[in-house]
Amino acid sequence: MEVYLDNAATTKPKKTVIEAVVKAMEENYGNPSSLHRKGVEVEKSIKNARKLIAKTLGCKDQEFYFTSGGTESNNIAIRGIAEANHRAGKHIVTTKIEHPSVLNTFKDLEGRGYEVTYLDIDSGGFISLEKLEASIREDTILVSIMHVNNEVGSIQPIQEIGRLIKGKNSKTLFHVDAIQSFGKIKFILSNLEVDTMAISGHKVHGPKGIGGLYVKKGIKIKPIVTGGGHEMGLRAGTENVPGILGFAEAVRIIMEEQDQQIKQMKFLKSYFIEKIQGEIKDVVIHSGTEESFAPHIINMSFMGTKSEVLLHSLEGDGIYVSSGSACSSKKKGYSHVLSAMKIKEALIDSSLRISVSDTNTKDEIDYAVTQIKKQVELLRKIMR
Amino acid sequence: MEVYLDNAATTKPKKTVIEAVVKAMEENYGNPSSLHRKGVEVEKSIKNARKLIAKTLGCKDQEFYFTSGGTESNNIAIRGIAEANHRAGKHIVTTKIEHPSVLNTFKDLEGRGYEVTYLDIDSGGFISLEKLEASIREDTILVSIMHVNNEVGSIQPIQEIGRLIKGKNSKTLFHVDAIQSFGKIKFILSNLEVDTMAISGHKVHGPKGIGGLYVKKGIKIKPIVTGGGHEMGLRAGTENVPGILGFAEAVRIIMEEQDQQIKQMKFLKSYFIEKIQGEIKDVVIHSGTEESFAPHIINMSFMGTKSEVLLHSLEGDGIYVSSGSACSSKKKGYSHVLSAMKIKEALIDSSLRISVSDTNTKDEIDYAVTQIKKQVELLRKIMR
Repeated sequence: MEVYLDNAATTKPKKTVIEAVVKAMEENYGNPSSLHRKGVEVEKSIKNARKLIAKTLGCKDQEFYFTSGGTESNNIAIRGIAEANHRAGKHIVTTKIEHPSVLNTFKDLEGRGYEVTYLDIDSGGFISLEKLEASIREDTILVSIMHVNNEVGSIQPIQEIGRLIKGKNSKTLFHVDAIQSFGKIKFILSNLEVDTMAISGHKVHGPKGIGGLYVKKGIKIKPIVTGGGHEMGLRAGTENVPGILGFAEAVRIIMEEQDQQIKQMKFLKSYFIEKIQGEIKDVVIHSGTEESFAPHIINMSFMGTKSEVLLHSLEGDGIYVSSGSACSSKKKGYSHVLSAMKIKEALIDSSLRISVSDTNTKDEIDYAVTQIKKQVELLRKIMR
Repeated sequence: MEVYLDNAATTKPKKTVIEAVVKAMEENYGNPSSLHRKGVEVEKSIKNARKLIAKTLGCKDQEFYFTSGGTESNNIAIRGIAEANHRAGKHIVTTKIEHPSVLNTFKDLEGRGYEVTYLDIDSGGFISLEKLEASIREDTILVSIMHVNNEVGSIQPIQEIGRLIKGKNSKTLFHVDAIQSFGKIKFILSNLEVDTMAISGHKVHGPKGIGGLYVKKGIKIKPIVTGGGHEMGLRAGTENVPGILGFAEAVRIIMEEQDQQIKQMKFLKSYFIEKIQGEIKDVVIHSGTEESFAPHIINMSFMGTKSEVLLHSLEGDGIYVSSGSACSSKKKGYSHVLSAMKIKEALIDSSLRISVSDTNTKDEIDYAVTQIKKQVELLRKIMR
């Protein structure tokens, strides 16, 4: 049996997504910038894709831009806002548990003369709204906060945060990394005080190499890549048509099935946690089943084991999980997220991330729990 | 009959390329950064893709990086070199006929305090080597010259240029935009004095949304997008695996069939020019059949017609051509390339670009010439 439980790292493209990609390559292969029909038809299909995703996000068509992925979206927003608005101030704020594409971009900006406040996180994985408010100053031009944390699944209250930021300084812009929340948590952008938001295709059963960026009308952003003026001047480069049309198909499925998908993920998560706690002793769950946690991410520590060893044992059973975020798991050292949550070294060392999708089943969870139990017990014996 | 003669704008992905993309989505859907087998397998396939393309280019594996496309490749090289080397000088050199992804990036750098020399072009579409040499100074950190011009097909002698640059200032770096030359002109990177080179997938029957950048070992480049340290730290973001594997398949075909492909393109180009000159009066060809022009691009003026009208008439016959480069054809105003070549307004106004691929046939050219003749004669009557 093969059970893929690493859906926060990436997801398997759905069947109709692959069909959309193939169609884009077989039929819609023209260059959208070409004046002839082969180009115009493709341009139209991109327009429809943009409309569909914008509608799903709850924004205007002209406020949604295609990018090469979530990392680029975060970079365009953060670098672009910093550069376009530095005359108003050079203070920027983020949290200690952001994805590397945000954190390393803030570090780079720090080296370019920006002053950064890195907000602390409590033991549950949440920022303090009081401390956030206190951090915002006259010269704060940007606050960047992720919606759902990719390692533990904690949800930051972006509606409240947006109101709070604007209440303190109406000129401070608010960027949200929604790469792990889009499709998993329902929101309507027009109801939020968010200025820019990054999303990614491959986290929602779309293709890799495609992402999106919401930019509220009127927000000034300096592009980081220049050229032929594609994507309304924000991102140059021939459009990744297969990626765009595949992404749109993935979003169409979300639009139609989101309630049911979320219900299934919540069920799988609760079922998994209940079962694992019933079957295995000394498990510490870092991701709650409350509404303040995403429905697809379960981070937990199996005391007396080593994450990487457990990961590879499970791999032998055809079960694919993560020992941290995929993006940083290859680097030495502890998870910066669990560290920021002040979780003990021994627990960080034995932490595993399981991330489900609506395509996973109860049977798969049953199998996974059985194998995890077996491997944990074996490991504990060996490591004792 | 449908005849696609806009292959310099984009090409139709080959059948096995589409198969590679599908396989990447159906089987190799893991995240290359994941520690488990689903990730490791994908990482391995990327490694093989990199090896294959590096071998075709004639460079080392570690010198080749995947990007989201040609525009991004040009931006990473030009911006990255400018930023990493500005202490050595702020003078940069390019030509007046570069693609917008180079030209607009140089313009942006001009606004950031760099001094730019834009080299003139002669009536054939070539730079003057003397003027290039004269332009290189003590503080010149970068020269960026395209290999094959996308509108007229003129080939700049990059081997000679590289030697000349290094002879004048060994510290000046040389970037080559090879997006229109890769696959169409044979070269071996290790024989050239080139420091960085941009290529693109969708110009060689690969997928859109994928490109490549050669960076000679030891060259300092500051990344423009930061994050999880992918692509050896040069370009962050989850790898576009379907794009990478599709691109590699397109390059594999080039590696195997290049001689035959170039022969076919040369034949189609010569045959087309000969036929069109035999059939239609008052045609001015801007792209020669000599070795100094690329085998796939034919730019010509049909005196007494208007390019855009002719383009749409031909579209009605199922023939797809360009009235300039796809990337700038939607913008008002004359081609900056033909203008730089000092071609008369009336000729620019009536210029058409035909670009062939090895997949085009003699029959298609016959049909195209017949229809062009018909439409040109009709248009000339109306416009008289």
